[in-house]
Amino acid sequence: MAKDIETAAEHRGGAKDYQDPPPAPLIDPEELTKWSFYRAVIAEFIATLLFLYVTVLTVIGYKVQTDPAKNTVDPDCGGVGILGIAWAFGGMIFILVYCTAGISGGHINPAVTFGLFLARKVSLIRALMYMVAQCLGAICGCGLVKAFQKSYYNHYGGGANEVAAGFNKGTGLGAEIIGTFVLVYTVFAATDPKRNARDSHVPVLAPLPIGFAVFMVHLATIPITGTGINPARSFGAAVIYNKDKAWDDQWIFWVGPFVGAAIAAFYHQYILRAAAIKALGSFRSNA
Amino acid sequence: MAKDIETAAEHRGGAKDYQDPPPAPLIDPEELTKWSFYRAVIAEFIATLLFLYVTVLTVIGYKVQTDPAKNTVDPDCGGVGILGIAWAFGGMIFILVYCTAGISGGHINPAVTFGLFLARKVSLIRALMYMVAQCLGAICGCGLVKAFQKSYYNHYGGGANEVAAGFNKGTGLGAEIIGTFVLVYTVFAATDPKRNARDSHVPVLAPLPIGFAVFMVHLATIPITGTGINPARSFGAAVIYNKDKAWDDQWIFWVGPFVGAAIAAFYHQYILRAAAIKALGSFRSNA
Amino acid sequence: MAKDIETAAEHRGGAKDYQDPPPAPLIDPEELTKWSFYRAVIAEFIATLLFLYVTVLTVIGYKVQTDPAKNTVDPDCGGVGILGIAWAFGGMIFILVYCTAGISGGHINPAVTFGLFLARKVSLIRALMYMVAQCLGAICGCGLVKAFQKSYYNHYGGGANEVAAGFNKGTGLGAEIIGTFVLVYTVFAATDPKRNARDSHVPVLAPLPIGFAVFMVHLATIPITGTGINPARSFGAAVIYNKDKAWDDQWIFWVGPFVGAAIAAFYHQYILRAAAIKALGSFRSNA
Amino acid sequence: MAKDIETAAEHRGGAKDYQDPPPAPLIDPEELTKWSFYRAVIAEFIATLLFLYVTVLTVIGYKVQTDPAKNTVDPDCGGVGILGIAWAFGGMIFILVYCTAGISGGHINPAVTFGLFLARKVSLIRALMYMVAQCLGAICGCGLVKAFQKSYYNHYGGGANEVAAGFNKGTGLGAEIIGTFVLVYTVFAATDPKRNARDSHVPVLAPLPIGFAVFMVHLATIPITGTGINPARSFGAAVIYNKDKAWDDQWIFWVGPFVGAAIAAFYHQYILRAAAIKALGSFRSNA
Repeated sequence: MAKDIETAAEHRGGAKDYQDPPPAPLIDPEELTKWSFYRAVIAEFIATLLFLYVTVLTVIGYKVQTDPAKNTVDPDCGGVGILGIAWAFGGMIFILVYCTAGISGGHINPAVTFGLFLARKVSLIRALMYMVAQCLGAICGCGLVKAFQKSYYNHYGGGANEVAAGFNKGTGLGAEIIGTFVLVYTVFAATDPKRNARDSHVPVLAPLPIGFAVFMVHLATIPITGTGINPARSFGAAVIYNKDKAWDDQWIFWVGPFVGAAIAAFYHQYILRAAAIKALGSFRSNA
Repeated sequence: MAKDIETAAEHRGGAKDYQDPPPAPLIDPEELTKWSFYRAVIAEFIATLLFLYVTVLTVIGYKVQTDPAKNTVDPDCGGVGILGIAWAFGGMIFILVYCTAGISGGHINPAVTFGLFLARKVSLIRALMYMVAQCLGAICGCGLVKAFQKSYYNHYGGGANEVAAGFNKGTGLGAEIIGTFVLVYTVFAATDPKRNARDSHVPVLAPLPIGFAVFMVHLATIPITGTGINPARSFGAAVIYNKDKAWDDQWIFWVGPFVGAAIAAFYHQYILRAAAIKALGSFRSNA
Repeated sequence: MAKDIETAAEHRGGAKDYQDPPPAPLIDPEELTKWSFYRAVIAEFIATLLFLYVTVLTVIGYKVQTDPAKNTVDPDCGGVGILGIAWAFGGMIFILVYCTAGISGGHINPAVTFGLFLARKVSLIRALMYMVAQCLGAICGCGLVKAFQKSYYNHYGGGANEVAAGFNKGTGLGAEIIGTFVLVYTVFAATDPKRNARDSHVPVLAPLPIGFAVFMVHLATIPITGTGINPARSFGAAVIYNKDKAWDDQWIFWVGPFVGAAIAAFYHQYILRAAAIKALGSFRSNA
Repeated sequence: MAKDIETAAEHRGGAKDYQDPPPAPLIDPEELTKWSFYRAVIAEFIATLLFLYVTVLTVIGYKVQTDPAKNTVDPDCGGVGILGIAWAFGGMIFILVYCTAGISGGHINPAVTFGLFLARKVSLIRALMYMVAQCLGAICGCGLVKAFQKSYYNHYGGGANEVAAGFNKGTGLGAEIIGTFVLVYTVFAATDPKRNARDSHVPVLAPLPIGFAVFMVHLATIPITGTGINPARSFGAAVIYNKDKAWDDQWIFWVGPFVGAAIAAFYHQYILRAAAIKALGSFRSNA
C-alpha cells in the first residue's frame, strides 16, 4: 500500500487543488517496461506462497495432533486450536504486508487488489497481473504443504474453504461479503492519502490493523466457511485439494470477497472521502 | 479521537495561555449544516454494526462448536474459548478506532461518548446523535448474526449481557463501573492534547492501548457479567435476543458504564490534568 | 518513564559534554512542594490498584469456571487458561505504563522503582513514596476482588504468589531474579535517553515491549512461583489472602525482584551505557 | 539492526551516488580495538541466554503440568499449549531485538548473522564472534532451565529440536529452510536502508514484525521439527539435553537455517533491492 502513497506523493507536487492523486490509468503501457513492475509481481507471488504455506501447514499440523484416532488427547484441545489458526492467518498478513508494502503495495489478496482497482489506485493491467501471481503463489504454497504432509493433507481437508454443514450458501456468501468488507475497509482507512499527509508514519503502522482485521474475521467466520476473504487462498487450496465440495462452493469465495471489496471501495470513496475532499477544498481556498 | 485533537490544534493558534482547546459548546447549530457531521454519525453506525456482528458471531459460533449435546469434544475446549472471545472484542475495537478516528473520533461506545461529553470534547447534540447511531448499529449487527445463525442464536444466549448466576447485581454493577473506568481512562490518556503536542504520533498509536483495555476487561469480567462496558453493545444484543433476564439486568449496563466514564472523566480532568495545565502555565511564563 | 526523559531533555540544553541527565538527588525537598509529585503518587496508586484488580479477578474467575467440583468441564480447559492469565498481566502493564508514563513514569512496580533509583533516575523520597503507593494500591485492588468473589477468593488461592510444590525456595528465588532482570532490562532499554535522542518516539512505543516482557516471564514462571517480579503485587495479594504459606514465601518476592532489578541496573549502566557515553564523547570531540 | 543503519547513515554523507552503505569489510582489525564491539558480543550472549531460558522453561513447565501420569487434567489442555509456546518464542525475539538493536543489531540467531554477513552488513570477524556468543548464551540458558527443573528436564525432551515421528529428514530440512527464509526476509525488509531513509522510525517498529515472523513459523512447524530456525537455540538445547536423537538431527538445524538465510539474502539483494538502487539512481540524475 505504501506504493500507492508514494505515487500520490509524486503527483502531489503538480496537483494544487486536489489532495488526491489522479486515478491510475486503466492501461499504462509504460508500466510494463519497468523492472519495478515485475519485481512487484514477483513479490506478490512469493508473499502469497508464504502466506498459504504457513497458514495451511498450521491448519493441517494441528488437525493431525488432535485426531482422536491418532492419540489420546482430546480433539480440538491439543495444539493451537482455532485461536492459533486465526493468529496464523492474521499474523502472516501483518508481516507480509509489512515486508512487501514498499515493493508491491502488499495486496497478497485479489479482493484487496480489486478494491484498490475500483478506487483507481492501480491500473487494470497491474491488477490482473497481481491476481495471476497471487493465485499461482497460493497454488505453490498449498503444494508445498501437501508435499510435506502427504499422508494427512487430503485426510484433513487440505485447508480448503467450504460452507460448513448446517449453513446454507446464502449465509456463507453473506459471511464472506461482510468479512471482506471489514478487511478492505481497514485497508482503505490505513492507506488514505489524506491521513498519510497529516501523519507521515501511518503507512508504517498500517500492517498491524490490517493483520488484526484478518485475525478478527477468522475468529468470527471459521465455523461458517473456514474463512476465505481471499480468493487466491481459496483457489490455491481448492486446486491442490481438488475435491468436488471445494469446487462446488468455490464461486462463493470469489463473488463474496469481490462484492465485499466493491462495497468497501464505494463506502470509502463516496461516503467517507467525498466530504474529505470538499472540506479540504474549502479550507484551501480560504488560505 | 483524532478529531478532537484536530479541533484542539485549530484553536491552539489563538489560545496563547492555555494548551487546552476551549470546551465544545453544548449545542452547536453550525455543526448540523456540515456533511462531516453526518458522515461521522454514519461512520459510528457502521463501526458499531461491524463490532457487534464480528464479536457476537464469535460468541455464538463457538458455543455451537463446544456444545456437548452436538458433538463429542469437550465443552469449552474446542474453538477459541473465552480468550478468543476477549480477543474478538479487543481486536475489533482496535481496528475500528483506527479506521474511524479521523472521521468521527472513533467512539463506538455510548460510555466513551458520554465521558468525552462530560470533558466538553464533543457537543451535546453530537453526543446524542452518536449514541443513537451506536445503538442502531448494534441492533443491526446482532440482527445479522441472528439471520446467519437462526437455529443457535437464542439457544446460546444471543451474546446478551446478564449478571451470571452466583453474583448479585451490586457486584455486576461494580464490575461494569471499574471496567468502564479502565477503558475511558485509557481513552483520555491516549487522546490527551498535552501528550499529543509533545509527541505528534500518539493519536496514531492510541487505538492499540484502547483495544487492549477492552481485551483486558473482557478477560477479567466475562465470568461476572459477560462484560458490557458499552451500553450500545448490551442494548443491541438485548433487543435482538429479547428475553426477560437480559432486559431485567439492562439498567446495570447503562448505569455502570456511565458512572465509570464519569469517574474517569473526573479523574483525568481534575486530578491528572489540572496540575498539567498549571505546570505548563508556569513554564510558559518563564519562557 | 517518559517523565525521566523529559527531565533529561530539560537538562540537555545546559549539559554540553554529556548526553546523560545529571543523577537525581537522593533527597529533593523542592519536589515535595509540587502538585505534580502528589499527582504522580496518586497515579501510581490507582494504576497498581487497577493492575491487581483486573489480573487477580482473571485468575480467580477462571479457577471457578474450571473447578471439576463445580461443573463438568475439564479442569484448566474452560476459560482463558494460563495463556489468558499471562495476557492479563502483560496487557495491563502495557496499558497502565502507556497511561501513566507521562504522569509518574509508569513504574507500577517497586522493583522497577528500585532499579530506576539505583540508576539515579528518581530521588530516594520519590522512590519510597511510589513504593508505598504501589503497595497500598495492590492491597485495595485485591480487596476489591475479594469483595466481588467472596465465596471463591480464599478457596482459589487469592492470586497469591507461592513457590509451587516440587520446587525449592532457591529455584523460586532464582526464577524471580531472572524474571525481574528481563523486565527491568527492557525498561532501561526502552527509556534510554541516548536512544530517545536518536528517535523521538521511542518512549511512546516503550510500553509495548515492557508489557510483552511481563507476558513472557509469566508464561515461563507461573508453574514455579505464580510469577511475582513485582513486590507490590505479591504483598497486596498476601495481605488480603493472609495465609501462612503466602507469608512464609513473601521474602522471596521482595529479595528476588530487588536483586534482579539491581543486576539489570548494573548491566545497563556499567556494561551497555558506559561505552555509549565514551563513544559519544569521542564523536563529539571530532565534530 | 539499528546498528547497521547507523553505519549506513555515517557513510551516507560521503556517498553521493549510492543510497547503500559500502559493504562491511571481511576483516576489520580496527573493530577489535573498540569497546562497542565487545559490548555487542556481550549483549548477544546475554540476549540468547535469556531467549533460551524463558522459552525452554515455558516448554518444560507446561509439559510437566499436562503430563497425564502426574495429574488428572487432559494432556495438552492445561497450561499455555502450543499457542503459548509459540508466543514465548516470538515474544522473546520481539523484546530482545528491541532491547539489543541499538547495541549489537539484535541478531540473537546465527542464521540472521549469516544472512547479514552474506549481504555484507557485518564483517566476518563480527559474524563469527556473534555466533560463538550466541551458542554459548544458548548453552547457559538451557543449563539454567535444567538446574531449575532437574527432575523434568530430560524427561520432557529438554526443549531440543528433533524431526518428529512420521516426518522424514528431507521434510524437516525443507521446513527449516522455508521457516528461516520467512524470518530473514522479514529482517531484511525491516532494516532496509532505503526504507529507513524514507521513514525514520522503521527501525523502532522493526522488532514487532520480526517477533511475529518467529511466532508464525512456530505455529506452523512445531509439529514437524519443534521449530529451530535458530542454530544457537538448537545447539544449546542439544548440548544440555545430550541425547543421540538430538545430535543425529543437529545438522538439519544448521544447514536448514543457513540455506534459508542465504536464499533470503539473495532474494532481497538481487531481486528486490537491485531495482531499488537503479530506480533511485535514475531519480537522482533527474534532480
